[in-house]
Amino acid sequence: MSEHQPDIFENRRQFQLERIILFSDAVFAIVITLLVIEIKVPTTSSFGALNSHELKEHLSELLPHFVGFIMSFFVIGLFWTAHHRAFGYVVNYDDRLLWINLLLLLSIAFLPFTTALVSEHGYLNLAYCIYSINLGMIGLMEYFLWLRISNPNNKLSTGLENNNVRQYVTARLLTVSGIFFLGALLCAINNSTVAWSARFLFILIFPAIRIVKRIYKVK
Amino acid sequence: MSEHQPDIFENRRQFQLERIILFSDAVFAIVITLLVIEIKVPTTSSFGALNSHELKEHLSELLPHFVGFIMSFFVIGLFWTAHHRAFGYVVNYDDRLLWINLLLLLSIAFLPFTTALVSEHGYLNLAYCIYSINLGMIGLMEYFLWLRISNPNNKLSTGLENNNVRQYVTARLLTVSGIFFLGALLCAINNSTVAWSARFLFILIFPAIRIVKRIYKVK
Amino acid sequence: MSEHQPDIFENRRQFQLERIILFSDAVFAIVITLLVIEIKVPTTSSFGALNSHELKEHLSELLPHFVGFIMSFFVIGLFWTAHHRAFGYVVNYDDRLLWINLLLLLSIAFLPFTTALVSEHGYLNLAYCIYSINLGMIGLMEYFLWLRISNPNNKLSTGLENNNVRQYVTARLLTVSGIFFLGALLCAINNSTVAWSARFLFILIFPAIRIVKRIYKVK
Amino acid sequence: MSEHQPDIFENRRQFQLERIILFSDAVFAIVITLLVIEIKVPTTSSFGALNSHELKEHLSELLPHFVGFIMSFFVIGLFWTAHHRAFGYVVNYDDRLLWINLLLLLSIAFLPFTTALVSEHGYLNLAYCIYSINLGMIGLMEYFLWLRISNPNNKLSTGLENNNVRQYVTARLLTVSGIFFLGALLCAINNSTVAWSARFLFILIFPAIRIVKRIYKVK
Repeated sequence: MSEHQPDIFENRRQFQLERIILFSDAVFAIVITLLVIEIKVPTTSSFGALNSHELKEHLSELLPHFVGFIMSFFVIGLFWTAHHRAFGYVVNYDDRLLWINLLLLLSIAFLPFTTALVSEHGYLNLAYCIYSINLGMIGLMEYFLWLRISNPNNKLSTGLENNNVRQYVTARLLTVSGIFFLGALLCAINNSTVAWSARFLFILIFPAIRIVKRIYKVK
Repeated sequence: MSEHQPDIFENRRQFQLERIILFSDAVFAIVITLLVIEIKVPTTSSFGALNSHELKEHLSELLPHFVGFIMSFFVIGLFWTAHHRAFGYVVNYDDRLLWINLLLLLSIAFLPFTTALVSEHGYLNLAYCIYSINLGMIGLMEYFLWLRISNPNNKLSTGLENNNVRQYVTARLLTVSGIFFLGALLCAINNSTVAWSARFLFILIFPAIRIVKRIYKVK
Repeated sequence: MSEHQPDIFENRRQFQLERIILFSDAVFAIVITLLVIEIKVPTTSSFGALNSHELKEHLSELLPHFVGFIMSFFVIGLFWTAHHRAFGYVVNYDDRLLWINLLLLLSIAFLPFTTALVSEHGYLNLAYCIYSINLGMIGLMEYFLWLRISNPNNKLSTGLENNNVRQYVTARLLTVSGIFFLGALLCAINNSTVAWSARFLFILIFPAIRIVKRIYKVK
Repeated sequence: MSEHQPDIFENRRQFQLERIILFSDAVFAIVITLLVIEIKVPTTSSFGALNSHELKEHLSELLPHFVGFIMSFFVIGLFWTAHHRAFGYVVNYDDRLLWINLLLLLSIAFLPFTTALVSEHGYLNLAYCIYSINLGMIGLMEYFLWLRISNPNNKLSTGLENNNVRQYVTARLLTVSGIFFLGALLCAINNSTVAWSARFLFILIFPAIRIVKRIYKVK
C-alpha cells in the first residue's frame, strides 16, 4: 500500500483492533444488563391491588431469579476481566481470532436464556445441566481465544515472552471451564445427592484459582 | 517487558483503562433506556379498538410509571455524571477497582426491576423501601469506587493532591446515599405518615448538595 | 494541576468529551434497535399452527407497526446525524451541556413507547398528538443543545466563527421541531379532517429543510 | 477554518468517523444479543412445577428457535466482519455514506423480528421468504455501502488503488445477497419441493465465497 501514509494505516489498524474489543464489550454489557430484564415484577392480581404480605410472597418466589442473576453477573464479570486481561497483550488480529471471539460472544449471548431456565426450573437437574454446559462453553471459548492470542507463531500478541504468564492463564481458564463441565456431568448422573451437591461445585472455583496462582507463582 | 516498545504499551494501558470506562457507559446507557421498556402500551381491548376516552384512562393509570421512569432517569444521570467526573482523575487501574466498578454496575442493573416495582406497587411501603435501598446501594458503591480512586496510596489517580476536592466528592456521595438509605429506613417504620413523607425525601438531595458545596467552597 | 503532565490531562479531557458522545450514541443505538422489539411475531393460535393465509392477515395487522418503526427509525437517524454534526464543533464541555444532552436522551428514550402507542392506536388523535409532542421535544432539546454549543461566550466550540453555519443549523432545528409541534396542535383540534391531514405534515420537513438551506446558501 | 489548529480538526474528523463506526457496532451488538431474548423459557405449567420430561419436550419445541438464533448470529457475524473490513479502508465520510449505513442498520434491526418469525412459523414458505428477503436486503445495503466507499471519485477511502480487492469484495457481497434473494424467490414458487430445498440454499454461501476468492486470487 502507499508508503507515504504510515501513520494513518497504523492508526487505522489499531482502531480496527479496538473496534473488535469494543464490539465484544457491548455484547458483554448488553447481556449483563438483560439478565435482570428476565425478572418480571409481580403485577396487580385480578382481585385488585396487592397488599404488603402478597408482595413479600411474590418477591420470595422470585428469590431463585435474584440468585441466578447475581451468579451469572459474577460469571460474566469473571470472564469479562479475563477477556480484558487477554486482549491487553493483543497487537494484531486475523480472521480466526475474530471468529473465535464471535463464538465466545455467541455462548455469552445464550446466558440470559440459560439463567432464566435455571432460575425458573432449578429444581430440575436438566435445567442446571444446561446452565453448567453454557458456562463451560464460555470458558472453553475463552481458552481457545487465549490459545490463538498467546501462541507466538500467530504473531498476534506481545509481552508474552514470559512462558509462565502464558501457562498460568491457560491453566486458569481450563480449571474454571473444567469445574463447570464437571458440574454438568454430575447433574446428568441419575442420583439426586450427587446432582444436588453439584450445585455447590461453583464454590470450588475460588480455591482452585488460588491453587493455580500458587503453582505458577503469580502475584 | 520489552524496552523498545514503550509507546505501544503506554497506548495499550490507556486503552485498557478506557475500555473499563466505555464498558461501564454501555451498562449505564442500556439501563437508562430499558427503564422505558417496562412501560407497556395499553393494547386493544377484547371488545374492539379503544376509544379516546379509554386511552386517556389507560395512560393516566400509567402515570406512576412515567414518574418512576423520569425519576430513575435523573438518578442514573446524576450517578453517571459522578462516575464521569471521578474517572476524569484516573490514570491507572487494578483488579479491586475493576470489581468495585462491577458491583456498581450490578446495583445499576437492578434499577429497571426496582423502578418497575415502585411504579406498579408504589402505594406499598415495602416497594418504596426496596427502591430506596437500590438507590442507596448505587451511591454506596460509587463512594467505595471514589475511595479506591482518590486514595493516594493506590496510585490510581492524578490531580487530586488538592485535599479539598477529594473530601468534597466524598462528602457529596455520602450525603446522597445517606438520604436514600434514610428514605428506606423511614419506609420500614410502621407509620403511614412517616412512610409517605419519606417519598418526598429525595427533594432534600438538591439543597443538601448545595450545602456540601458551600462547606467545601466548591464552585 | 501538575504542570509537567500537560499531555495526559489534554488527552484525558479529550477522552472525557468523547465519553459523553459515545454514551449518547449508545442510547441512540439502543433506542433505534428497541423500536423493533415492540413488534411481536404472531404466535401459533390456540387451534394449532397458523396457515399461510392467517399469517398474511396477522402481518397486515402489524403494518402500522412497521410504518411506525421505519418512521421513528428515520427520525432518530435525522436527529443522530444532527447530533453528530453539532458535536463535530465541540472542543470542551460543562455541566449544563451534559444535562441538556441527558434531557435530549430522555426524550429519545421515550420514543419506543410513543412509537408503539401510535402504531397500536394511530386512529386516535390523542395517540398521534403524544407521538408528535415527543418528536417535537427531541427537536427542541437538540435546539437547546445547539444554542449551548454554538454560543461563543460558552467557549465550548471552535470553527463556528462563521455566523452563517450557526444560524443555518439553528433555523433548521427550529423548523423541524416546529413542524412536529404544529402536527401535535392540529391533532388536538377537534376536527377529523384537520387531524388526519396532520398525519402527513411530516412530509413538509424535506422541502422545509431545502428552503432553509437555500436561505442560508448552504451546500 | 482556522489554520492554526490543524491537529484538533484532524483528530476531530477522525473521531467523527470512528463515531459512525462505533454507533454501527452498537446496533450490531444489540441486535446479535436481542436475538436470544425472543426465545422464552417455558414457564411453570398451571398444573404445578414442570417435571424433567415436560421440560425436555418444551425445549425440543424451542429447537427451531435455537437454530434460527445461531443461524442469524452467524449471518450478523458475517456481515459485521464485512463491515469491519470495508471500514478499514475509509478515511473520510459524507452524508450519503452516513445514510446508506443507517439503511444497513435498519435492515439489521429487522432481523430479531424476521428470525422470530421464521423460528415460529418456519414451516410456512411465507415466513421463510420474508426472512430471506431481510438477509438479502442486508447484503444489498452492504453492497451499496461498499460501492460508495470504494469508488475512487468519492475520495472516502485509501489503499484501494488495487482494483482486484475492490472487485473481489464487490463480487463477494453480490454473491452472498444474490443467494439470499434466490432463496426468497424459490420460496415464493408454489411448489413445496422447491421451497423446502430453498431452506438449504444458505449452505451454498461457503463454497460460493471460496469460488469468488479463487477467481480474484485472494488469499
